[in-house]
Amino acid sequence: MTAGVKALVFDVFGTVVDWRSGVAREAAPFLAKHGIAVDPAAFADAWRRRYQPAMEAVRSGARPFTRLDVLHSENLEAVLRDHGLDPATVAEAELDHLNRAWHRLDPWPDSVAGLTRLKTRYIIAPLSNGNVALLLNMAKRAGLPWDAILGAEVAQAYKPSPAAYLNTAAILGLRPEEVMLCAAHNGDLAAARSTGFLTGFIPRPMEHGAGQTKDLAPAQDWDVVAPDFGALADAMGCGGG
Amino acid sequence: MTAGVKALVFDVFGTVVDWRSGVAREAAPFLAKHGIAVDPAAFADAWRRRYQPAMEAVRSGARPFTRLDVLHSENLEAVLRDHGLDPATVAEAELDHLNRAWHRLDPWPDSVAGLTRLKTRYIIAPLSNGNVALLLNMAKRAGLPWDAILGAEVAQAYKPSPAAYLNTAAILGLRPEEVMLCAAHNGDLAAARSTGFLTGFIPRPMEHGAGQTKDLAPAQDWDVVAPDFGALADAMGCGGG
Repeated sequence: MTAGVKALVFDVFGTVVDWRSGVAREAAPFLAKHGIAVDPAAFADAWRRRYQPAMEAVRSGARPFTRLDVLHSENLEAVLRDHGLDPATVAEAELDHLNRAWHRLDPWPDSVAGLTRLKTRYIIAPLSNGNVALLLNMAKRAGLPWDAILGAEVAQAYKPSPAAYLNTAAILGLRPEEVMLCAAHNGDLAAARSTGFLTGFIPRPMEHGAGQTKDLAPAQDWDVVAPDFGALADAMGCGGG
Repeated sequence: MTAGVKALVFDVFGTVVDWRSGVAREAAPFLAKHGIAVDPAAFADAWRRRYQPAMEAVRSGARPFTRLDVLHSENLEAVLRDHGLDPATVAEAELDHLNRAWHRLDPWPDSVAGLTRLKTRYIIAPLSNGNVALLLNMAKRAGLPWDAILGAEVAQAYKPSPAAYLNTAAILGLRPEEVMLCAAHNGDLAAARSTGFLTGFIPRPMEHGAGQTKDLAPAQDWDVVAPDFGALADAMGCGGG
């Protein structure tokens, strides 16, 4: 029952782009240069493990809204310390370049083609916890054809807070049931559904690498389940497939 | 000296699109149906005259930030009353459709081609007092190839308040001198320059119709002055001209 959908909004990290490989690729030369003997993918995982706790400080109200580039930077400094490197000894420009690894992530192979088809019939936009500059720089580099850059910074709320979804629908001038969240994460979809959004599940079984155990299958009867963005475009009635 | 510019942000009403002809075209059948004997272009002018005072209530702090669709709707009701029609007698859907005339404005003939060239080298986005849904629906209909939809609603401040410009640069992750405002209005450019933005003037001598007297020439030595968006793309070093 997706006939009333006017906008498709997307989780980005993991759903549209492969953050783990991208961060590992960007971190590898930095780690080698500074003599940190860690698998770059494990370093990416360690950096990412600090993501939810950092946002939780905002969601709980303990901290005013702070954009993700800043949280990523604080988390990077912490994870470097965990690996025995004092970030104060590293040039600020070098740290900033590494922090912006999240701006330089590659899409999954089907993302750009699928989004391009979906754009012919729907408004398409990220609904990501990434900030506008991050998502915009990523889109310019990767060719992601968004109609607008939405998400936590524009909504001033981090997913899965209900305000992240409800404010996004209001900004689009749409009712929640006219908006569908597309994501590889059951938890994100559950939060979106609870606010009235429709839901599309696109599993990304390699998001966390070969040993991934979670989000391999739908946890609820999502409105659409598709193995990739091409199949999502098919399911949403878009030509060009 | 535009060598350091990374993003071009645009005034929209008057600079990118022809609001007066578009609103007049959309209002004409409504006015005829309701027996209001007024030139549709004069009706557009009357509606638009309430634009700055409505935003001033927000800029002065007398009213919390309110998106432009809402201000337009209030202004429409007032201007209908001025023309002897009680808006309470009109179906809400009909009023809403007319209010969304501002979502259905046509670009000037050079806008889409010029923006398409500029996009190859720069981030391009609206920095408009229009709200996100308005600018997004306009872009989908008209083919405006924005990289992101920015402006008053995202910055939570109406131009020419300094925060409208400074918050936009911060959201882009850029310093003010890395952003150039392109506009047909000397006042907008003066406010942008005072915050450190670079400035591009593109006069639109028909914005207010054949009798236009203001903004026909640059009031300061703006960084770029170009007769249309094609010449702007030339001046900014973009190919494809």
